[in-house]
Amino acid sequence: MILISPFTFGEEKSGPLIAVDWGSTNLRACLLINAAVVEQIETGDGIKNIPNGNFESVLGEHTADWRNKHSDCRFLLSGMIGSREGWVEVPYVQTPAGLSEIRAGLHRFESPELGHIAIVPGISHENPDGTIDVMRGEESQVLELLADTGRGNAIICLPGTHSKWIECRDGRIVRFRTWVTGEAFELLSSSPLLAKGDAPDCHSKAFGRGIELARKSESGLLHQLFLGRTEMLMGRVPAADLPSLLSGLLISTELCEAEIWLGENASREAFLPVGPSQLIDCYQVVIQHFKQKAD
Amino acid sequence: MILISPFTFGEEKSGPLIAVDWGSTNLRACLLINAAVVEQIETGDGIKNIPNGNFESVLGEHTADWRNKHSDCRFLLSGMIGSREGWVEVPYVQTPAGLSEIRAGLHRFESPELGHIAIVPGISHENPDGTIDVMRGEESQVLELLADTGRGNAIICLPGTHSKWIECRDGRIVRFRTWVTGEAFELLSSSPLLAKGDAPDCHSKAFGRGIELARKSESGLLHQLFLGRTEMLMGRVPAADLPSLLSGLLISTELCEAEIWLGENASREAFLPVGPSQLIDCYQVVIQHFKQKAD
Repeated sequence: MILISPFTFGEEKSGPLIAVDWGSTNLRACLLINAAVVEQIETGDGIKNIPNGNFESVLGEHTADWRNKHSDCRFLLSGMIGSREGWVEVPYVQTPAGLSEIRAGLHRFESPELGHIAIVPGISHENPDGTIDVMRGEESQVLELLADTGRGNAIICLPGTHSKWIECRDGRIVRFRTWVTGEAFELLSSSPLLAKGDAPDCHSKAFGRGIELARKSESGLLHQLFLGRTEMLMGRVPAADLPSLLSGLLISTELCEAEIWLGENASREAFLPVGPSQLIDCYQVVIQHFKQKAD
Repeated sequence: MILISPFTFGEEKSGPLIAVDWGSTNLRACLLINAAVVEQIETGDGIKNIPNGNFESVLGEHTADWRNKHSDCRFLLSGMIGSREGWVEVPYVQTPAGLSEIRAGLHRFESPELGHIAIVPGISHENPDGTIDVMRGEESQVLELLADTGRGNAIICLPGTHSKWIECRDGRIVRFRTWVTGEAFELLSSSPLLAKGDAPDCHSKAFGRGIELARKSESGLLHQLFLGRTEMLMGRVPAADLPSLLSGLLISTELCEAEIWLGENASREAFLPVGPSQLIDCYQVVIQHFKQKAD
């Protein structure tokens, strides 16, 4: 569960540390003593569930026991807590960014109630066409993963609501791209015309048909979504399986586009998909399907 | 408002005719005497709003006055009433399809309460990749439009929930394609992360930015949807204008893909966009933008 260690951000010499991964929907916190996790909690107090910007007191309540036992706790916060909707909006650090750039971008301040707080900045990446992609929280996860695996170079996939592909060179994030695969699934699967039925199953025929539609049909997503409906009308896919087809279609669309975006780098390094295991299964099924068809 | 005339389906000799455009959300009916519309009604009794498949009595109620005044009314029904969720599922007629093919596919039966009823079949089109597209109701609209304009060849765009592009040759529908542009807008604009704000305005800067993202960025829709969010984060588009950006992005995506699909035929015939005027405005703005950039 721990996503940020004191080593990562050079905070190891500062005594007890409370490392917090504070996202939109969850708050995960660890107490570290001598750089070892001794306790951890997880709550639903993500920043969007906290009224009136009351971040200081919510964090204070959840960590009161730890702070009573250990004086002089320092805080290291990562994730959406540093966004516009968070406690303080911490400016993005631009790619390429590794440990030293992120350390330099840490936003430090003294909280009257809680003492020293450092918020990890997000990272932004400017595409060649002038558009900009952003992350907040994933950078900590990626740097931990590089440290854990001893790699400097990697292509990392973080599936989720806003799925991200991240390319790392020499321990730094050099570029990344976001696909709204998870959120699109949630929104589109609420439509009875497009996909309403059973929970998606990545081992179903319908999921495989979704993969094929994304890979083989000569059209884009807005047409392919309608093809899901006609597959049902033509008796090729049961209505209850349309969410599986939708899931296969969206994940494959992401993977096809990620392959193009990564170019020759795609095959040079192993992907390291990280995320909830059920979702990782889906991605592995699609990757496997791509490999088989390429053979 | 009239979408099906007795001429269209060769019913002109049969005395009083009640022509009904019976879609998912609305029921529109006209009384025709000697092939001229003398009365018409529009109600919200679309097929999805009618419980227990009670189509006969709902239609009977709405047309009782007409039938009392004119004995021997015949019925011609078009639209989703002929779908799986409708009164009778009428098999699709395959492309190429014009008047004679559709007439041959009319489903006729005697209703105990209402007398002679004919239901217009939908049309299906098999793409070269084996996927199948379908329409129900639009075929009547298209054939009326060809008759009204005296054209045999045309490329017709029917924007809407499930937007359709239809290619006609010699008075027959030879191929068509559906994009779920309207439905995707409805579903995606409900997300505060992707686009929640004011009603879309096709003359706004944000709408134009949506067009540019679809046309210029080197990525697909699932990434471009995220770019809408970052445009807002970077201060390029106000949060309240994100629905405009989303609308421009989706409509442009449809038009870009329709251009590719139509190929050289795209420039040979004028497009004839038909639909609610506000939506037509949006499409015209995008088409104009495409033309200017091409000059």
